[in-house]
Amino acid sequence: MTKVKIYVTLRESVLDPQGSAVQGSLAKMGYNEVEDVRIGKYLEVVIGDTDRDLDVLVKEMCEKLLANTVIEDYRYEVEEAN
Amino acid sequence: MTKVKIYVTLRESVLDPQGSAVQGSLAKMGYNEVEDVRIGKYLEVVIGDTDRDLDVLVKEMCEKLLANTVIEDYRYEVEEAN
Repeated sequence: MTKVKIYVTLRESVLDPQGSAVQGSLAKMGYNEVEDVRIGKYLEVVIGDTDRDLDVLVKEMCEKLLANTVIEDYRYEVEEAN
Repeated sequence: MTKVKIYVTLRESVLDPQGSAVQGSLAKMGYNEVEDVRIGKYLEVVIGDTDRDLDVLVKEMCEKLLANTVIEDYRYEVEEAN
């Protein structure tokens, strides 16, 4: 069994209205030091034993479902299988 | 200027309907190896120069706004300031 940590973030060139809204709220709360906020998705996916190549599997799942590759980037880390 | 990476995740004891929905979709797409999916938020926060203690600042922002500490946990990593 393997745990894969996946990070899906908006591309740098894409505006992040949600991040801007959070930054605005933080400023109203007095946290004016905050200069930028970008918000993305963090997924923990547990994958059982499989014959398939893990990298191919994870890339496929990201590109078909978990990330919108037109506006999002993804990266992932594989935790030690246990 | 410092970049802080913040991970907000549902507590283990809390049901994750969004994660279950994604797992179901992955299974329909043929990814039956996937045994569990948990979805959280990943934030990148850029903090300008400040006199305030960074840990205190980040914890306050998480506990007041970024995480719902009743059902969510948070952790963060500070990237080298540049």
